[in-house]
Amino acid sequence: MKVFILNGPNLNMLGKRDAEQYGSYTLEDIEHMLIEKFPQHEMTFFQSNVEGELVNAIQSLVDEDSSFEGIIANFGGYTHTSVAIRDALEILDIPIVEVHLSNIHAREEFRENSLTGAMAEGIITGFGKHSYVLGVYAMERLLNENTDA
Amino acid sequence: MKVFILNGPNLNMLGKRDAEQYGSYTLEDIEHMLIEKFPQHEMTFFQSNVEGELVNAIQSLVDEDSSFEGIIANFGGYTHTSVAIRDALEILDIPIVEVHLSNIHAREEFRENSLTGAMAEGIITGFGKHSYVLGVYAMERLLNENTDA
Amino acid sequence: MKVFILNGPNLNMLGKRDAEQYGSYTLEDIEHMLIEKFPQHEMTFFQSNVEGELVNAIQSLVDEDSSFEGIIANFGGYTHTSVAIRDALEILDIPIVEVHLSNIHAREEFRENSLTGAMAEGIITGFGKHSYVLGVYAMERLLNENTDA
Amino acid sequence: MKVFILNGPNLNMLGKRDAEQYGSYTLEDIEHMLIEKFPQHEMTFFQSNVEGELVNAIQSLVDEDSSFEGIIANFGGYTHTSVAIRDALEILDIPIVEVHLSNIHAREEFRENSLTGAMAEGIITGFGKHSYVLGVYAMERLLNENTDA
Amino acid sequence: MKVFILNGPNLNMLGKRDAEQYGSYTLEDIEHMLIEKFPQHEMTFFQSNVEGELVNAIQSLVDEDSSFEGIIANFGGYTHTSVAIRDALEILDIPIVEVHLSNIHAREEFRENSLTGAMAEGIITGFGKHSYVLGVYAMERLLNENTDA
Amino acid sequence: MKVFILNGPNLNMLGKRDAEQYGSYTLEDIEHMLIEKFPQHEMTFFQSNVEGELVNAIQSLVDEDSSFEGIIANFGGYTHTSVAIRDALEILDIPIVEVHLSNIHAREEFRENSLTGAMAEGIITGFGKHSYVLGVYAMERLLNENTDA
Amino acid sequence: MKVFILNGPNLNMLGKRDAEQYGSYTLEDIEHMLIEKFPQHEMTFFQSNVEGELVNAIQSLVDEDSSFEGIIANFGGYTHTSVAIRDALEILDIPIVEVHLSNIHAREEFRENSLTGAMAEGIITGFGKHSYVLGVYAMERLLNENTDA
Amino acid sequence: MKVFILNGPNLNMLGKRDAEQYGSYTLEDIEHMLIEKFPQHEMTFFQSNVEGELVNAIQSLVDEDSSFEGIIANFGGYTHTSVAIRDALEILDIPIVEVHLSNIHAREEFRENSLTGAMAEGIITGFGKHSYVLGVYAMERLLNENTDA
Amino acid sequence: MKVFILNGPNLNMLGKRDAEQYGSYTLEDIEHMLIEKFPQHEMTFFQSNVEGELVNAIQSLVDEDSSFEGIIANFGGYTHTSVAIRDALEILDIPIVEVHLSNIHAREEFRENSLTGAMAEGIITGFGKHSYVLGVYAMERLLNENTDA
Amino acid sequence: MKVFILNGPNLNMLGKRDAEQYGSYTLEDIEHMLIEKFPQHEMTFFQSNVEGELVNAIQSLVDEDSSFEGIIANFGGYTHTSVAIRDALEILDIPIVEVHLSNIHAREEFRENSLTGAMAEGIITGFGKHSYVLGVYAMERLLNENTDA
Amino acid sequence: MKVFILNGPNLNMLGKRDAEQYGSYTLEDIEHMLIEKFPQHEMTFFQSNVEGELVNAIQSLVDEDSSFEGIIANFGGYTHTSVAIRDALEILDIPIVEVHLSNIHAREEFRENSLTGAMAEGIITGFGKHSYVLGVYAMERLLNENTDA
Amino acid sequence: MKVFILNGPNLNMLGKRDAEQYGSYTLEDIEHMLIEKFPQHEMTFFQSNVEGELVNAIQSLVDEDSSFEGIIANFGGYTHTSVAIRDALEILDIPIVEVHLSNIHAREEFRENSLTGAMAEGIITGFGKHSYVLGVYAMERLLNENTDA
Repeated sequence: MKVFILNGPNLNMLGKRDAEQYGSYTLEDIEHMLIEKFPQHEMTFFQSNVEGELVNAIQSLVDEDSSFEGIIANFGGYTHTSVAIRDALEILDIPIVEVHLSNIHAREEFRENSLTGAMAEGIITGFGKHSYVLGVYAMERLLNENTDA
Repeated sequence: MKVFILNGPNLNMLGKRDAEQYGSYTLEDIEHMLIEKFPQHEMTFFQSNVEGELVNAIQSLVDEDSSFEGIIANFGGYTHTSVAIRDALEILDIPIVEVHLSNIHAREEFRENSLTGAMAEGIITGFGKHSYVLGVYAMERLLNENTDA
Repeated sequence: MKVFILNGPNLNMLGKRDAEQYGSYTLEDIEHMLIEKFPQHEMTFFQSNVEGELVNAIQSLVDEDSSFEGIIANFGGYTHTSVAIRDALEILDIPIVEVHLSNIHAREEFRENSLTGAMAEGIITGFGKHSYVLGVYAMERLLNENTDA
Repeated sequence: MKVFILNGPNLNMLGKRDAEQYGSYTLEDIEHMLIEKFPQHEMTFFQSNVEGELVNAIQSLVDEDSSFEGIIANFGGYTHTSVAIRDALEILDIPIVEVHLSNIHAREEFRENSLTGAMAEGIITGFGKHSYVLGVYAMERLLNENTDA
Repeated sequence: MKVFILNGPNLNMLGKRDAEQYGSYTLEDIEHMLIEKFPQHEMTFFQSNVEGELVNAIQSLVDEDSSFEGIIANFGGYTHTSVAIRDALEILDIPIVEVHLSNIHAREEFRENSLTGAMAEGIITGFGKHSYVLGVYAMERLLNENTDA
Repeated sequence: MKVFILNGPNLNMLGKRDAEQYGSYTLEDIEHMLIEKFPQHEMTFFQSNVEGELVNAIQSLVDEDSSFEGIIANFGGYTHTSVAIRDALEILDIPIVEVHLSNIHAREEFRENSLTGAMAEGIITGFGKHSYVLGVYAMERLLNENTDA
Repeated sequence: MKVFILNGPNLNMLGKRDAEQYGSYTLEDIEHMLIEKFPQHEMTFFQSNVEGELVNAIQSLVDEDSSFEGIIANFGGYTHTSVAIRDALEILDIPIVEVHLSNIHAREEFRENSLTGAMAEGIITGFGKHSYVLGVYAMERLLNENTDA
Repeated sequence: MKVFILNGPNLNMLGKRDAEQYGSYTLEDIEHMLIEKFPQHEMTFFQSNVEGELVNAIQSLVDEDSSFEGIIANFGGYTHTSVAIRDALEILDIPIVEVHLSNIHAREEFRENSLTGAMAEGIITGFGKHSYVLGVYAMERLLNENTDA
Repeated sequence: MKVFILNGPNLNMLGKRDAEQYGSYTLEDIEHMLIEKFPQHEMTFFQSNVEGELVNAIQSLVDEDSSFEGIIANFGGYTHTSVAIRDALEILDIPIVEVHLSNIHAREEFRENSLTGAMAEGIITGFGKHSYVLGVYAMERLLNENTDA
Repeated sequence: MKVFILNGPNLNMLGKRDAEQYGSYTLEDIEHMLIEKFPQHEMTFFQSNVEGELVNAIQSLVDEDSSFEGIIANFGGYTHTSVAIRDALEILDIPIVEVHLSNIHAREEFRENSLTGAMAEGIITGFGKHSYVLGVYAMERLLNENTDA
Repeated sequence: MKVFILNGPNLNMLGKRDAEQYGSYTLEDIEHMLIEKFPQHEMTFFQSNVEGELVNAIQSLVDEDSSFEGIIANFGGYTHTSVAIRDALEILDIPIVEVHLSNIHAREEFRENSLTGAMAEGIITGFGKHSYVLGVYAMERLLNENTDA
Repeated sequence: MKVFILNGPNLNMLGKRDAEQYGSYTLEDIEHMLIEKFPQHEMTFFQSNVEGELVNAIQSLVDEDSSFEGIIANFGGYTHTSVAIRDALEILDIPIVEVHLSNIHAREEFRENSLTGAMAEGIITGFGKHSYVLGVYAMERLLNENTDA
């Protein structure tokens, strides 16, 4: 399975951010955890704080030569405001799993809606770094409906 | 791990319901899938269409003699309207994982908010029957922060 | 024609309730009126104050052995709040006629929307006990498009 | 029984309009159906696309010499926007039955309220051409409370 | 002083309408009252239930040959909904006085705003037939700023 | 006729305020104009910037010994916010005429509603100092329904 | 005095719930406190988590043989959402006192309105277990207007 | 117990106001009733129609030499609009009981929220003059948690 | 190409209206400009201030004998309020181009939505009289997808 | 430079109020700090809890004999609700600087708007007592555009 | 004529995107079409997915040495959310024509407003690739008011 | 004192922008003014039109080696829309002062809220270039609470 793992604004600051809310691990820790746990999968990581670069990254997967089979994405603050990312996702025909570290339904009201999530197959929210692991599990199932769950 | 798996209104009709949206499996199929896949866990299943019975079921876990360690719940239509279930969940001190078969962010607007989900640790939405499997994986992580993810 | 006639909360109190608004007949009077007026139809009556029991009743009609051809329903106060009943109705493939004793467009604002009515073929509202008679007439037409109106 | 049957904008286009939503009959078909089915009643038909002409028509019934006993009306698009028609209806003291071909609770949100319907005794919505037949039945009951339903 | 006195939908029904709210006089009574009380002024009266005819009437005053010096208008139900009348008023450069029989701030909420009134110099609301008399007095002052009030 | 003429906050600044919007006269000019124009009436003037003193003034008229027959009031900025003044007006059983110098329907949106005006018989808005004169004319008519308009 | 004391969802969990917010007493403690404090009154207690059972309980008091003179009720989470309970209360002609342990005006915004409270004579909110005692005092006064307060 | 009993705008008009809604007693009657009924308590009464004087009165209790132990207050129309009174209450560290004569949840919508009530321990609304008596009872309990209820 | 060019309320006043906002040309000027510029097309012009007459005009194009291939329309003030015109447009199966003289996104907020425009293929707004010329160009392209743009 | 420094409700309680939010200084401390720090300026201080007295104070500056060159004001709770103060400020033609101790954008939502601030040249919010010092610096710059910043 | 043609996020994906909604041509196809069709004009094309780069591009036209005479722009998803682009457009004094491929009034509600469009002279929406051609025609007219339309 | 001075979109265009609203100075002028006026401070300037680059810049200050003690920032159009910048600010533990050239409370409504400002210690708005000078003064006070104001 070849997956693109996309992180949006401020996720590069994990571990430097309020530990109480997000835990003490960094984005690199999460990437290593995923590589170690899923040696059988090919995973490419990309992070950017720039909305347009995230759009660029998504568009690069539309290329016919692209062999990526799915996207696991955490768009951070752009989740709630970016029509541009939403439009980019709409073009793709590979499945998208949206993940969030914290439970977006238990925070400020302006974080409750998800503009981008409406384009995803599903959303996993609130499990800290484990949200990413669950995201990979979810992608395995989306790509192989015959898996024994 | 001893988990209570709670299903709300109309989930007993799975498989009889619009297959295009929810798949062709029944609630029993989901329960068997979970039992087979996770023989190491003790899982108790409960479904009701009655809001108050779901409150009763949640309250039964507050009992000091209760040995349940977590709840995986899909409150169906009550997700968006039940202050009573939300209040019942608030009393519990075991972790709660909310799951949904379909992506609640990609349906009618009145399904976007989650009154009950604000009391959960996290939410998994949109992966069909796999949402339950991912829910168990999530619970394993919530109960054992030291797990190697 | 075999029809299920479903009444929700407080309709069992008809006749004991403010006569000015609802008239002086009881729910039993309505049922007898229907039986007398439509001896050719088989009608089953069910009333409950419990939201989940109404869901149960609706689900019982999904059974393949069920021979009911239509539902005439007055969900009372749940009309405006129950996502659970709405979801239950969505599963059915027999026609639904929603009826109300009083004109819901001429009362408090919170009675103007109808969550359940969006799942019905049509709605009849404001004719007192006659709403039920008109409901049967409507059902006859829904079940026999060839009727000479 | 002498009844005025009033149709608003675009109802003269029935049958030329999207058949899937409204059926293939014309307004004339409906009128003939009513005349044939209710030979005992005197029915006068009026249709206009002009809001003010509908107001005029309603006002003509206030005349003391008018012998009309009731109005069955479908105000089409003016149902949701016309304070002028609402005010005209408020002057009448004969009963009003509002009818709609399609279920206004199952379409666009701006069709859910009914400004004019608040002045009616009751509303019948969603039964296609049968809504008119049911409207006559309803009027019979409104005019003769002693009818055996 | 040459004034155009414009009345909108349902004002022709005055006296036939709910006497408690509007008094027992007719529109003709009001016109006679004005003619008698203000013999020195030339007053032209026009009433229509049709929104577009009211627009037409207003436009007729834009004609360079028109010698009308002001409009006193009661747009009835169109007061709250007509962008078309508002636009017509905006073209005029003679003063406009809006009058209402009943106090629009003490009725249903949808009568509180006045789309057309924003184009008027001022509004007089709530004094029954006297609102028209006060409207003439107001117009006298608008047309002669030097009047000793 | 014995009338109480009540002015709220900032009306004492008339003439010192933006002349373009309100004209160049002062509150004293208005009072003199009224006294000169209506020598037959007994008029008492009161102005205050303090919400509670306006409430006090209104209450003083409830006294059984009070011989005032009506209130003409311009509550300035309190028109839109004061529940306290509204409640005070509700106790009175003499008629109230609300006046405004400028047209409240043609200014900022927060000036469009009138909390206090719902307690008045009628409102006159937009005629500058003439609003007060028209207010006296209106009061004459309210106190003598038999007046020949 | 014969009073029915009705408690809604989750109130049976008092004492097991967050002590900081609700105190450490149980519902049984409250009942004993009331019995001890008011030996002269006959009090019947009922608690349910099921909305419809609360409706049933209220309806049982409409029975002509019922000798209950008043209801003291805390509908918990249903206070804010139940049209069905509101409708049931509307039928009763004995007085209703609504009580709440915590101050509903100082919590989440969705707890500020009270659908059921609009049917009550009055509401007492925020005094913990004492809200019930004050509720009995209030009922004494409602039932005996001549009491020396 | 030394208590400050504070009344806001228009409460000095009680008994002169619409008797149907508020009863026929005056504010003095209420004060005498309280003095007679609670001879053991020291009660100071203050009423003002002026928002700022109510703020002043509340501030006077912050004085270290003040020996008042609690406030019972009815802020009348300021309940719903005064941020200034709310801020004054926030400074106090003695308990506050808010009372209302009529049930604020059963009147106009703009009376449903309580800006000041969010600063109170609890609210008692709807019991006419008895609301004050219940307020004293409530204060007794707030000041002596050990009271046998 | 045979096109129907439809203008709504107040467009007949062009040139007499505020020149700063709309320019100094009249509706006739626009019509002549179009005829001169597009001699190869057959254009029929219609203007009305009456909502219902615009509905009538649209309906006349549904006639099977009608040979009109498209509509270019400016509904003026009805653009934002007319459900009736919207419904009439929905019946047509020839393309519709909506035009506006001024930019509706840069004026009052109530002009921003376009009820009728949702039924059009496209909208051209803000180019004064040129909006009509561009409308014809647009129609040429809609009717001949093979045009070299 | 001659400046009027105006403080609204509850600011006289500074230092007695929640120290955590506002610091431990009193209003007098602030005034002394300003006098000491700006001996070159003539500063007049005024505080009132009464909305109308604040209006009075502002009006006193409109006097032609007034030599005040600017206002620095903190209207406390009236900032968000007072149309009367806003109107008073609008008359002035000396510059106004609005200051707040705490950051109004980081508190309750009803404190986010500033009715009065729209009349000010600028606003300084969130720097505790330093907000006043910065307010004086700001006023120096407003009065002398040539200052070297 | 020297024109800058600006495209925002995802427009570089045209032709790869849902062909049903946008057609099968690419952005390059559109550019070639424009060059071929308008050889007399100098057109510069720029596309970016990055909001800030679009701001940069617009700013480059403010340069006094810039000889561009107009902008034709399609800001894609930023149309509805970008205050930054709106502010950049506001600085320009050359005309702006906004174009959209699809009719923004006939899609999701969050696409109906146009923040950027309020800064444009006009908007052309819904004609697919032809929107750009019409945009050039519109620009020709904006730059030469004397053109024979 | 070492301060980072951050400017968002379009601030690089100052002086080229509408001089009436913002003054005639450029961003460079402001920077020189600050350097000259505060030679004792070390100030680093950064401007970008790109949301993500502003996020990058803020993140660079989280670095442990960063010796910056505070941020003075004007986020321009992103102030009102950027959750991403808000999240970046939340990570910092050095103080933030938000500044604006114009008074955001006196412009379009969509500029009134400040998403980013809720993360700042305070906000200074409306003093043109002086807002930056006042920002430095504010920062001095935030960094040295002992300063003699």
